[in-house]
Amino acid sequence: MRLTPKNELEYRFRMLQREMAATGLDACLLVQNADLFYFTGTVQSGILYVPAAGDPVYLVRRDYLRARMECGLAQVIPFSSPKDLPPLVAGLGHPLPSRIGLELDVLPVLLYQKFQALYPNAVFADATPCVRRVRMVKSHEEIHIMQDAAMQADKVYRRAKEYIREGMAEVELAAELERVSRVEGHQGYIRMRAFNGEVGMGQVLCGPDSAAPAFTNTPLGGMGLTPAFGHGAGYNRIARNEPVVVDLGSCFDGYLVDQTRIFSVGPLSDRLRKAYGDMLKIQERMMVLAEERPSWGEIYRECLSLAVSLGYGDHFMGTAGSQVSFIGHGVGIEIDEYPFIAKGFDHERLEPGMAFAFEPKVVFPGEGAVGIENTFYLTESGLKRLTFSSDELVVL
Amino acid sequence: MRLTPKNELEYRFRMLQREMAATGLDACLLVQNADLFYFTGTVQSGILYVPAAGDPVYLVRRDYLRARMECGLAQVIPFSSPKDLPPLVAGLGHPLPSRIGLELDVLPVLLYQKFQALYPNAVFADATPCVRRVRMVKSHEEIHIMQDAAMQADKVYRRAKEYIREGMAEVELAAELERVSRVEGHQGYIRMRAFNGEVGMGQVLCGPDSAAPAFTNTPLGGMGLTPAFGHGAGYNRIARNEPVVVDLGSCFDGYLVDQTRIFSVGPLSDRLRKAYGDMLKIQERMMVLAEERPSWGEIYRECLSLAVSLGYGDHFMGTAGSQVSFIGHGVGIEIDEYPFIAKGFDHERLEPGMAFAFEPKVVFPGEGAVGIENTFYLTESGLKRLTFSSDELVVL
Repeated sequence: MRLTPKNELEYRFRMLQREMAATGLDACLLVQNADLFYFTGTVQSGILYVPAAGDPVYLVRRDYLRARMECGLAQVIPFSSPKDLPPLVAGLGHPLPSRIGLELDVLPVLLYQKFQALYPNAVFADATPCVRRVRMVKSHEEIHIMQDAAMQADKVYRRAKEYIREGMAEVELAAELERVSRVEGHQGYIRMRAFNGEVGMGQVLCGPDSAAPAFTNTPLGGMGLTPAFGHGAGYNRIARNEPVVVDLGSCFDGYLVDQTRIFSVGPLSDRLRKAYGDMLKIQERMMVLAEERPSWGEIYRECLSLAVSLGYGDHFMGTAGSQVSFIGHGVGIEIDEYPFIAKGFDHERLEPGMAFAFEPKVVFPGEGAVGIENTFYLTESGLKRLTFSSDELVVL
Repeated sequence: MRLTPKNELEYRFRMLQREMAATGLDACLLVQNADLFYFTGTVQSGILYVPAAGDPVYLVRRDYLRARMECGLAQVIPFSSPKDLPPLVAGLGHPLPSRIGLELDVLPVLLYQKFQALYPNAVFADATPCVRRVRMVKSHEEIHIMQDAAMQADKVYRRAKEYIREGMAEVELAAELERVSRVEGHQGYIRMRAFNGEVGMGQVLCGPDSAAPAFTNTPLGGMGLTPAFGHGAGYNRIARNEPVVVDLGSCFDGYLVDQTRIFSVGPLSDRLRKAYGDMLKIQERMMVLAEERPSWGEIYRECLSLAVSLGYGDHFMGTAGSQVSFIGHGVGIEIDEYPFIAKGFDHERLEPGMAFAFEPKVVFPGEGAVGIENTFYLTESGLKRLTFSSDELVVL
């Protein structure tokens, strides 16, 4: 069992305290699973109180003994009701907070109202931008875990090469690749921060239906098995000479990487092969750009403009009318972390330690979609790849 | 592709309007995926406006064409910004609402604040109890879909009988059973309404570790693969003469059933076999009680008191100190619907149409856990079982 080292946890909450100071927060109350894992090293039913100065306090309802076993923080305290929080924290010598940060992008209103009642005179603000900024810069420890996730992604890719057959339903292929992921350590669940972000383990799509848009904020959608869950793998069967898109989030010890590869039974048309090569060119362009540490929005604009100049303006990053306004997204504990390689992020620059997936994709209505996705991270000495499976189109 | 019939949708929103009238709501704004699927027949990125009288309006941002194709409501309208909502709804002749219901148990605060800004003079209340009361009574259509999910559960059970071997890791077994579920139509994701309710596809546990409590509000926990996701299947290997718990949520066309069976390689000890038989007795007791349509809490109390009288007070429904305060839970589109067969629900009675999982389980620290779980529904002519796999302990 890999435990988050104490010094990692300490560094993380000190960085959060620096962000809190910059935004004027006296305390943060964190309750969401991904944030709890990052700042405590475990996921329990509880509340993490991070004061402006001093050590954080992890109040744990369930399960306290698991928390004690897995969490490297000094102050882990059992509690039974949120009402215990203010006196417990005050008893540890922390001053009454007047400006409190909460995860307002994910916190349900009823829980929010409980916190408001606990601190009736406090002002509440969104702590998530602070949390995102701390989490976006990965430590060596985190990058090592993501390398393990990239190994899993490669095993899934190799299994896809062996397993894909004409006539196979998307869901059969997805089921087998998910099985391999699980056996290789995938927790079976991809955390997505966005509300209603139900991604399953990713998308396996083939032929024209891979171009079907869905409610998900993803370049491709797919029909899914049912209108109840209308995206990702469906009953659609793999035909010859059409692209099979395997876009799965691999996950190991809580950390994700994202990788997409295109397979086909028999060759694709010249047009699709050329488009695939052009998506690789856009990836190349990003790799050169990223070394200059530009703004996230600049990478987006430059790569979008290359896609347009290559003739893909209409269906780059989704079917016309359903195009998404990003080409890449940060990954880590969640699939939608900072940095967003997206429209409008012109003041946030790429920094060493950032890890992100980059996924130029283009749709051909009636034919399918092609593209590439890899996960990268920036170091002091340049951009490195985490996912390492061959970028070549796989013709079976 | 199974579409929700128009008359079903109409019945559902009329029932919601009845609940709204009883609680004084002028309108509901629904945005959560499970509720959207129930009331519109599709899941899109959008807002469902349900007025106190007249027809609902489904505003869809993404994907409008998918919504048109899958949704049986008359009024499906594309929109691009929440700001469009009040004028669009007013333009359709609906009066300005002064008391608005929102899904406050799941709605993130930032979205809530957007809705508050749209209707600055309105009072907002929690619509979820109304929604839960409508959704808890299943139609024949819904029960038929759940029967399909029960067929899937039986295939998973049969595969487990073939596949379980001494020395196999929990996660290997989970991976194979999840693969079978997927091939049989499982969407790969179980919807849980509770905040942080990350259940994956269920729990596969063996031996002493199945008794490890976790943060999840479930009788059993398990160690999981990592502290990042510390419940469910882990690397623990199946040994002879110990219970293997297979507790998976099967899901078809968006609807769940929940089933647990116990397997073992070689016989279990007399004590565990007796305990298994006693859990069946508690199931029998519930089945007799349910026909009398008592309160949910009364079923809980009676069955708990039977468990105590059989000698399982200490570890019934979880390890001592981590016991959960329910024995059953409603199922449908989510795994945690009404009715709650739980402590404190003394004023809510069982009614025809309700479907619920019932899962008496007992933990033996250092040995493992045994128990049974089936999904039932109440009809005018009595209680019926949805899950139908044999209740016998499976000794391999």
